[in-house]
Amino acid sequence: MSLVDGESALRGALRGAGHLLPGARPGIDGHGPEFEAVVDGLWRAYADRAPAGTPVMAFGPLIDAAQFTATDYPRSFPQLVGEVEVFRGGDPEHRALIGDVDAGRDWTGYFEPSGMTLVPATCQNVYPRYAGTLEAPTTVFCRSWCFRHEPSEDPVRMVAFRICEYVHLGTPDSAEAFRADWLELLLDLFRGLGLDVAADRANDPFFGRVGRMLAANQLQSGMKNEISVDLYPDRRTAISSSNAHRTHFADSFGIRLPDGGPAHTACAGFGIERVAIALLATHGMAVADWPGPVRRALRLGRETV
Amino acid sequence: MSLVDGESALRGALRGAGHLLPGARPGIDGHGPEFEAVVDGLWRAYADRAPAGTPVMAFGPLIDAAQFTATDYPRSFPQLVGEVEVFRGGDPEHRALIGDVDAGRDWTGYFEPSGMTLVPATCQNVYPRYAGTLEAPTTVFCRSWCFRHEPSEDPVRMVAFRICEYVHLGTPDSAEAFRADWLELLLDLFRGLGLDVAADRANDPFFGRVGRMLAANQLQSGMKNEISVDLYPDRRTAISSSNAHRTHFADSFGIRLPDGGPAHTACAGFGIERVAIALLATHGMAVADWPGPVRRALRLGRETV
Repeated sequence: MSLVDGESALRGALRGAGHLLPGARPGIDGHGPEFEAVVDGLWRAYADRAPAGTPVMAFGPLIDAAQFTATDYPRSFPQLVGEVEVFRGGDPEHRALIGDVDAGRDWTGYFEPSGMTLVPATCQNVYPRYAGTLEAPTTVFCRSWCFRHEPSEDPVRMVAFRICEYVHLGTPDSAEAFRADWLELLLDLFRGLGLDVAADRANDPFFGRVGRMLAANQLQSGMKNEISVDLYPDRRTAISSSNAHRTHFADSFGIRLPDGGPAHTACAGFGIERVAIALLATHGMAVADWPGPVRRALRLGRETV
Repeated sequence: MSLVDGESALRGALRGAGHLLPGARPGIDGHGPEFEAVVDGLWRAYADRAPAGTPVMAFGPLIDAAQFTATDYPRSFPQLVGEVEVFRGGDPEHRALIGDVDAGRDWTGYFEPSGMTLVPATCQNVYPRYAGTLEAPTTVFCRSWCFRHEPSEDPVRMVAFRICEYVHLGTPDSAEAFRADWLELLLDLFRGLGLDVAADRANDPFFGRVGRMLAANQLQSGMKNEISVDLYPDRRTAISSSNAHRTHFADSFGIRLPDGGPAHTACAGFGIERVAIALLATHGMAVADWPGPVRRALRLGRETV
């Protein structure tokens, strides 16, 4: 049974309750204080599952463009990429830019690539930090803002949003065990928060003709599992995923096992806003009225903001 | 007396202690868990100063480009702007992009303006939300990621960083009172955290020939005060500012008083990472050993991450 009538009903409820603050264009709404308390509670509840000694890494919204290119993301998902351009001109270009601003024209003609892009998944900022020989299988907890250019009126499909993830770097066996174990851990986490979740094989929006083949391969391989909720009447909504990458990122960044072979990597995380919205759709827009166990699991009620 | 020998000593200490995680280019280092706990503690300590009923707004790193243009920032500080470009091509452009990737060339030739830029100051996302008639003077608390393209080896000069601010919208008198009062409140907050701070008139990096005039006007007007610490031997380092904008943003976004005249605005906030680094330089790299009152003010020691 779906939780809400549709996108516009959900968007209206979230905005009406002050959880989303309408932006000037789709996908960049601001957030109110209760929403932020749920966001904080969610990543902390996930961070609490970290084994002792887990490295913790927090990143801003950017990644070095050469590292981003090495992930192969621009090839598979060009339509989602956000590239950052900057102005390196002098007084003449500045005068021309001002002329464009004054005339109400596009003023970005004098901008050029910065060497940075917005990052579409938090784990991309982790792999390059492990270039070289990996002494032992390692699991990292990380979080950051992310960007995917798929503007939509659907309030769960944001352009800018946050992800928190565990990233594993290890052997073929340790990476596959991680993918399976953390899928169960995520299902357990979400069920503990009262969400009616199910695991499915993932179906990413690979681009174009080549992309249709890549998407079919992904479905067949079972290397990526999504966790979804029954938010809307006409489709399930993914809130989380657990992925094994085999040697993809290890090959890109030169992450080797002690025997010289490439490491295997895997990651398991969730879109924090998506889970927050699933909770609001499930337990109601009044966070103060959520069930006690859910509020305690998210440490709600202690914060002033 | 300066706190550290210089930029490279500070950078080395911060990285050595795991507070900064070196990025592939200047200004986009990641952050370790103790650093993040200090960041969280700082914005919460500032949020605690909010009068009852203060609206709270959290934003991602982006702003609508038309709203950004209306702030006049591209005219005054083009060299700091980060503009976001996206790919709207089809299969032929995708093939060409893949060709560029494979040849190791710049692959951004098929990208075009997204209609979004990175936001350089959190308050820019607040003003447009008050377009129209302001019923009474209003103060808002806000926080977000920000971007200013001034890559540097100086660890306090980040390209991506966080700001938290109070923003005031009101009358000429209420805005001027806000600027003066919140300057004192910020000084009090920082002194309570053991920082040796001083207030100065601000000196922003306005661009080019026109910019030198604007900078002189800013110094003379006293409309912007900075709060600085004695971090390095050769200069003071700004960590915070309190600004009165007169009718600048009200004119840009059509924010009017009940009598039909333009509102006056002001804002008072700080660069969260800069204050965190000032605290680390003052109290030492081992956050567990900071003075008890500072740890309590920042609610340190309760978090697992």
